[in-house]
Amino acid sequence: MKEKMTIIVFSGDMDKAMASFILATSAAAAGMDVTMFFTFWGLNVLKRNEGGIQSRGIMRKMLNWMNRGGSRRLPLSKFDMVGMGRWMMKKLMKESKMPTVDELITMAKEMGVRLVACTTTMGVMGLSKDAFIPEVDSFAGASAYLGEAKEGRVNLFI
Amino acid sequence: MKEKMTIIVFSGDMDKAMASFILATSAAAAGMDVTMFFTFWGLNVLKRNEGGIQSRGIMRKMLNWMNRGGSRRLPLSKFDMVGMGRWMMKKLMKESKMPTVDELITMAKEMGVRLVACTTTMGVMGLSKDAFIPEVDSFAGASAYLGEAKEGRVNLFI
Amino acid sequence: MKEKMTIIVFSGDMDKAMASFILATSAAAAGMDVTMFFTFWGLNVLKRNEGGIQSRGIMRKMLNWMNRGGSRRLPLSKFDMVGMGRWMMKKLMKESKMPTVDELITMAKEMGVRLVACTTTMGVMGLSKDAFIPEVDSFAGASAYLGEAKEGRVNLFI
Repeated sequence: MKEKMTIIVFSGDMDKAMASFILATSAAAAGMDVTMFFTFWGLNVLKRNEGGIQSRGIMRKMLNWMNRGGSRRLPLSKFDMVGMGRWMMKKLMKESKMPTVDELITMAKEMGVRLVACTTTMGVMGLSKDAFIPEVDSFAGASAYLGEAKEGRVNLFI
Repeated sequence: MKEKMTIIVFSGDMDKAMASFILATSAAAAGMDVTMFFTFWGLNVLKRNEGGIQSRGIMRKMLNWMNRGGSRRLPLSKFDMVGMGRWMMKKLMKESKMPTVDELITMAKEMGVRLVACTTTMGVMGLSKDAFIPEVDSFAGASAYLGEAKEGRVNLFI
Repeated sequence: MKEKMTIIVFSGDMDKAMASFILATSAAAAGMDVTMFFTFWGLNVLKRNEGGIQSRGIMRKMLNWMNRGGSRRLPLSKFDMVGMGRWMMKKLMKESKMPTVDELITMAKEMGVRLVACTTTMGVMGLSKDAFIPEVDSFAGASAYLGEAKEGRVNLFI
């Protein structure tokens, strides 16, 4: 039996998404079984980068316009400065040969990391499955998370 | 023996408080034994909504005026926009039939979740027990937390 | 065998650094074996307070100037108000006889808590070992963290 790790990705910030995926891929590389649950702002990491986000009602449209998301649009949790800090950090990461969030998603999938999107948040924000990238393995709620976390040796909330 | 879960609620943001209570009540519903430790800004979740907060000294009065707290006054961690985002999120949650933080506290209590307020933070912020709602089960410090977390199968810091 | 605790300190905020060290020293006092991994903004907690930070390239110099760090320069995660809130919180903590972050680092070291700085972030930010205080025990990456966390009874991400 493989040792399990779970990560709740609550944050939609680029730096926290990177930390999540670096931990997830390192664990998978060390032979662990990893599941990542994306909830609340964290759903932004899994939204499609292309096209618009469909949702019903003026308030949900406004929310999804401000909170557009997509792996290439994530802000930094600090020093984002309307995108300037984010742009700088991306350059520094490229120079250091660090993978981007996009590349980390691909790596994670190739290593068997499971990506789960939270259905409760999807309901509140008026998001349907087609707002998300095809790399998402499943759509589930808190009880699915708890089922896995109970078996986890390492459970983090990021 | 029931499986244990502990959550440190450090944040006083509405979205993180909701995530904490959704996890706590889901765990209790699945038969787990859950304790939530509220510390630092997280104490705001457990402050009474009515009346003022008493504290001695000008600086503590200022801090408790800015940081008034109460389950109905929690800001969003993102897009709060001086209350506008919070108001919108509350409307969307109501439409989706999501319980409010207040209702989640009641549900958690009914399901046996224990709510603990951190005495160390209370000391620094000059808060006495009567600043808090009666739903608080106990007042304790870090070592009480660790005693429980060591037995926990899932321990989160939110 | 001692029970293990690990803490990832991702945040460079004073309040979160204090929470991390209070948990770490309480755990060590209770006989636990504690390792703290400082990554991303969390590296600021371990940067020397004196002198400048050397780094190559204009962007890294800018980043390290804005993100100077050092245990005595950490902002609050809320109400920092360009240093005003931080100054107030420091005064309140002193009045309550709370140790400062500096004193907590010393206490943690005396109690055997291990402080590890993340080499991946150091690479991206262009930081060399001499940017850090001598209290740092080692420099390592995510796989070193996972090796310890797998054995941990309590693993937190702060």
